[in-house]
Amino acid sequence: MSYYPESIRKLIKNLSKLPGIGEKTADRLAMHILRAPRRDADRLAHSIMEVKEKIRLCAMCFSLSDAEICNICRDRNRNFSILCVVEQPADMVAIEKSGAFTGLYHILEGVLSPMDGVGPDNIRIKELISRIAQGKIQEVVLATSTNIEGESTAAYISERLGNHPVKVTRIASGVPMGGDLKYVDQVTLKTAMKSRHPI
Amino acid sequence: MSYYPESIRKLIKNLSKLPGIGEKTADRLAMHILRAPRRDADRLAHSIMEVKEKIRLCAMCFSLSDAEICNICRDRNRNFSILCVVEQPADMVAIEKSGAFTGLYHILEGVLSPMDGVGPDNIRIKELISRIAQGKIQEVVLATSTNIEGESTAAYISERLGNHPVKVTRIASGVPMGGDLKYVDQVTLKTAMKSRHPI
Repeated sequence: MSYYPESIRKLIKNLSKLPGIGEKTADRLAMHILRAPRRDADRLAHSIMEVKEKIRLCAMCFSLSDAEICNICRDRNRNFSILCVVEQPADMVAIEKSGAFTGLYHILEGVLSPMDGVGPDNIRIKELISRIAQGKIQEVVLATSTNIEGESTAAYISERLGNHPVKVTRIASGVPMGGDLKYVDQVTLKTAMKSRHPI
Repeated sequence: MSYYPESIRKLIKNLSKLPGIGEKTADRLAMHILRAPRRDADRLAHSIMEVKEKIRLCAMCFSLSDAEICNICRDRNRNFSILCVVEQPADMVAIEKSGAFTGLYHILEGVLSPMDGVGPDNIRIKELISRIAQGKIQEVVLATSTNIEGESTAAYISERLGNHPVKVTRIASGVPMGGDLKYVDQVTLKTAMKSRHPI
């Protein structure tokens, strides 16, 4: 890397800080940026600075937004009585892509993980409780991950909401659609078998 | 992607123009940039703009440089009588890393490829000839790739240099060091066998 001029070395160093980008990939990306039209490189640089300037967290659901309240929370066509709780903005985007949910969201920005020192005060549970305390929400769908942290976070929230007049549900677990049974792990199969339903 | 605010969508779009970065990776990178400290994002953006501003081609060897003449061509400790011809700056960096060469370089910026419409006038062969015509260079090492285009480019240059008082050599081909013979392709093995030498 020291064989490149200073400014290329700096670019490679900064690119290799991105997740999943090692030094070789950063080298390749830097060479591409050098060859690309000036306009494309400028656009990339500006869009990096723009997100840092414009993007903030929605004051209602804490998803990424370029306004005080995000597009979804502002959308009058959505069902304001049902709230889906997810770990992070990307989960919300995944659910939106599925088109299966038309209510509002609440982003926890993490999961309970005592091993990593993340307790109930470190994720947005307090904010969730106060949203529900306003009384407009009738159902809370817990859509945290189905790993240990996600499950225990869901269990914890469900318990905390016990004394609120709200229906608490959990997204279903089971064999993924289009999945080949022989490749599905045992825990998932066990869950799918336990939650079997008449057709 | 349309579930993100405008500025994030723009960043994802610009990131996914980079080679080997699909939409999913671009999404992940964008999320990382959003979470990263403002300073890191600014540094990345600035280094992208900086390379586009500062980097030009060395007037002697055509490698990437932030000055009129690159560090290598300026280095008085190098052997100015031997010239290594490579296809692109990255090849020069690879040879520099090996530490096996202390002469100067000449970057062709491509290989002869009639199928893609690249002829002798489209790569820096004219510039190579005029460097050699100055009479200071005693040996030209052709270090183009060992594929069809690289081989024919080397053959073409060697022919063009026929009437110049200069020694023309080609980097050796054979089994890579540390290579397992059973995984080496047939053409390489054939070359290695043909070029065998006494030990």
